[in-house]
Amino acid sequence: MSLIVVGSMAFDAIETPFGKSDKIVGGAATYIAWSASNFTQPINQISVVGGDFPQEELDALKARGVNLEGVQIKKDEKSFFWSGKYHMDMNTRDTIETQLNVLGTFQPVVPESFQNADFLMLGNLLPAVQMSVIEQMKVRPKLIVLDTMNFWMETAMPDLEKVLKHVDVLMVNDSEARQLSAQFSLVKAAKEIMKMGPKYLIIKKGEHGALLFHGDQVFFAPALPLEEVFDPTGAGDTFAGGFIGHIARTKDISFENMKTAIIVGSAMASFCVEKFGTLRLTEISKQDIDDRIQEFVQLVNFDIALV
Amino acid sequence: MSLIVVGSMAFDAIETPFGKSDKIVGGAATYIAWSASNFTQPINQISVVGGDFPQEELDALKARGVNLEGVQIKKDEKSFFWSGKYHMDMNTRDTIETQLNVLGTFQPVVPESFQNADFLMLGNLLPAVQMSVIEQMKVRPKLIVLDTMNFWMETAMPDLEKVLKHVDVLMVNDSEARQLSAQFSLVKAAKEIMKMGPKYLIIKKGEHGALLFHGDQVFFAPALPLEEVFDPTGAGDTFAGGFIGHIARTKDISFENMKTAIIVGSAMASFCVEKFGTLRLTEISKQDIDDRIQEFVQLVNFDIALV
Repeated sequence: MSLIVVGSMAFDAIETPFGKSDKIVGGAATYIAWSASNFTQPINQISVVGGDFPQEELDALKARGVNLEGVQIKKDEKSFFWSGKYHMDMNTRDTIETQLNVLGTFQPVVPESFQNADFLMLGNLLPAVQMSVIEQMKVRPKLIVLDTMNFWMETAMPDLEKVLKHVDVLMVNDSEARQLSAQFSLVKAAKEIMKMGPKYLIIKKGEHGALLFHGDQVFFAPALPLEEVFDPTGAGDTFAGGFIGHIARTKDISFENMKTAIIVGSAMASFCVEKFGTLRLTEISKQDIDDRIQEFVQLVNFDIALV
Repeated sequence: MSLIVVGSMAFDAIETPFGKSDKIVGGAATYIAWSASNFTQPINQISVVGGDFPQEELDALKARGVNLEGVQIKKDEKSFFWSGKYHMDMNTRDTIETQLNVLGTFQPVVPESFQNADFLMLGNLLPAVQMSVIEQMKVRPKLIVLDTMNFWMETAMPDLEKVLKHVDVLMVNDSEARQLSAQFSLVKAAKEIMKMGPKYLIIKKGEHGALLFHGDQVFFAPALPLEEVFDPTGAGDTFAGGFIGHIARTKDISFENMKTAIIVGSAMASFCVEKFGTLRLTEISKQDIDDRIQEFVQLVNFDIALV
């Protein structure tokens, strides 16, 4: 069993300058699973949902090669719910409402069949829950990737600091990198954060692309310039899914291969934002993905002949 | 005579979160000349200064291969002066004071020896002045590049619209592209702007890099992630200088070569921001530039093997 994905499976209600969604299926682990399953199967999913989570969504994920043995279903409770509103630049958003529901008491259990996974993707979630999954692994995975957000820096920093000591790759966005490090320069921020545990740091900059840091090395991947960013919800999780999916497929955790994984993640994220929720991710084909990755190659390809 | 550079030569007083400069030499054409002269000489400079502009600065430019025959010196008047203050993100700034001085009545004259230039770089300046230079050219240059700013969109839009019809490449920053096109999406903005005249559009995004649009093609160049952005003044002009300098050196105005020119421009801009004013540009060697360009190659270089 190769890849474990941990994170929320939930409901979102989203408002953007271009429209408003109903209460739709979302959650970090949902996006990661849809994205990563294009590259590797099964996805060994660890999450928790309430009785209100649609069976057809679970069926669709199962059909996609997602092993739901680690997903707890609490029939008499409600799934996590988030509603938010994006501003015109689509890089900033306001949270309108958060209902923790089942997530408030979530105790993850790693099924026996998930042991010996090579790759562990810890989607954005309480740091203590992320730590619990690491502690339950009898053999340390070859690569542990963790995504987190500013909310945990404000409410659970000691737990976050603890789990950071155990992960290989941290993913945050630019403002979170600044908050976590108390440095404005992202180069300085990266140095500080890599002292906290992660040997690799990915800083997501939304429409401005992503940076990968490792020691003194740095790699930059652009975001595809899009006519429309319809809904950015889940773009970071979709990026994470493409990243870990590529790593799990190639079984190569070198810095060089992480660069490629970031391009794959960026390509997946560029699909995610084209429609509300996970919809676009459920539609795309392997050919669509290959074509999109080629667009990234063209976007940054240049020849240099020195003076 | 191959390259003409038009723009201000002036004084700036700059305040950043990291420090405050005295009244120092600046101006678009000053930065462009320092930058472009690394790649091609002579630089045929068209500008205007007052009697207060330092002779040693003119001498330094001359020693650098800048032909000052087109620079008017109005002994009894004062040079253009700008003072401004940058905010923490270094992408936004407030103008504290602007004194047009000699620039208010500037009537550029293209010297006979500048005729038949292949390349014309119109640095940020009144659109009517930029137009006057184009009109004085007996033979249209092979490539006309124009830089402008939001100020002219607000105060001289009809003149700007007129000159845009005559240029090949327009350079603006992202907020100016949005203002000029009334489109938020930069992809849509580019389409609108290319209808206004320019066949090529470069959108500068500061620390987020630069985009080159041409027809349906797009190229993205990153900015180098820097520990310190000490002073961004002149970075856009320095970028323009590297861009046109590379084009003039290679005499190749293809889209492919413009990509390389943008990398060269980005490398030059990354030096500019390291110290106040033009100081860093006067220090760097060919080896420094070659090394910096190689950093850009490394920054975006990746291998893709499709799924």
